[in-house]
Amino acid sequence: MSEPKKLAIIVHSGTIDQLLCAFILGSTATSMDWDVHLYFTFWGLQMLKKGEMDKAGLPATYKHLEKHLQSKLQEMNYPTPYEMLKRMKASGRLTLYACTPTMEMFGIKMEDLIPEVDKLAGAATFLDVAAEADITLKI
Amino acid sequence: MSEPKKLAIIVHSGTIDQLLCAFILGSTATSMDWDVHLYFTFWGLQMLKKGEMDKAGLPATYKHLEKHLQSKLQEMNYPTPYEMLKRMKASGRLTLYACTPTMEMFGIKMEDLIPEVDKLAGAATFLDVAAEADITLKI
Amino acid sequence: MSEPKKLAIIVHSGTIDQLLCAFILGSTATSMDWDVHLYFTFWGLQMLKKGEMDKAGLPATYKHLEKHLQSKLQEMNYPTPYEMLKRMKASGRLTLYACTPTMEMFGIKMEDLIPEVDKLAGAATFLDVAAEADITLKI
Repeated sequence: MSEPKKLAIIVHSGTIDQLLCAFILGSTATSMDWDVHLYFTFWGLQMLKKGEMDKAGLPATYKHLEKHLQSKLQEMNYPTPYEMLKRMKASGRLTLYACTPTMEMFGIKMEDLIPEVDKLAGAATFLDVAAEADITLKI
Repeated sequence: MSEPKKLAIIVHSGTIDQLLCAFILGSTATSMDWDVHLYFTFWGLQMLKKGEMDKAGLPATYKHLEKHLQSKLQEMNYPTPYEMLKRMKASGRLTLYACTPTMEMFGIKMEDLIPEVDKLAGAATFLDVAAEADITLKI
Repeated sequence: MSEPKKLAIIVHSGTIDQLLCAFILGSTATSMDWDVHLYFTFWGLQMLKKGEMDKAGLPATYKHLEKHLQSKLQEMNYPTPYEMLKRMKASGRLTLYACTPTMEMFGIKMEDLIPEVDKLAGAATFLDVAAEADITLKI
């Protein structure tokens, strides 16, 4: 059997349009039996704090479309970002990293984060993972 | 003859600064005889609706520079984003994808889109293309 | 001895959250003896003008957090973006490119730029570098 393909994403953004982009790619990849590595940093990392992810809104440029998008997603019974993350996790193919320099910068502690986080890690860990990946993106 | 190199870009943004970034890279790549794959999603996809692409503005952070940039581009006789897209298409080296989940989310139909779109596709199609690419970017 | 690994980044953004992302990855990579190629374009290029980089702020979405972040970074004695850039440069492993089409678009001349810039270059140069890189990102 051949090695599974590997997708590595830096999740720097914390708005719902960007989380959906990362999570649709990530969950499609796990459903194709790829390994997925999501490294959350900066505004993305804020969304790993307990209770935050499903409060994600739109960026300033598109703020006026926020309510419309949210009601459309509900109407479609679209899974929320946190539900998508938990499904990816349940596939056994997701490794979730929280960026340690960001945690220090924003005074975030490990116990503040959702339990799905696998590792606290710096940039060196991400670079090593990404150098072996088939696709690397920064979102 | 060796295989042409391949550039794959997710165009998630719909502002002119980001479209220019994607299209300058894309048209430079086609002029180097590379194959170019552009996968439009979210705000990028809105720009594939007929008549929308050349109305693209700047994001909130740089809104105050929008008029200045537009008149500078006109003064330089810079091609518009849609003109750039059509030139890439004319090279025979561009494949243009519209993201089906986004179309459903925003109620966009195929007949709303410009005729240059080659395929309606989900994330799995993009992942397969990008895994074989020499460069993959998310813009 | 094996070839050093190579990281290529398009720095399109000019806000401090994004510069930190690019420079933390870049300086971590140089400390791992990787070669790092940073290609500054659009808003990123504005930050290569003398005296501009350490004035970088936050984007509109997060503008209200700008003072908090800046005082936190000072309290941590975090190096400024320009200090990080100079350290990467001192490693001998950084090549710094300024995007020529952007310079024309914004009327920026070579003498306006910081002396750490190695090359003025168009997209073709970046594509050739990135096609050989282990990791390519657009920030």
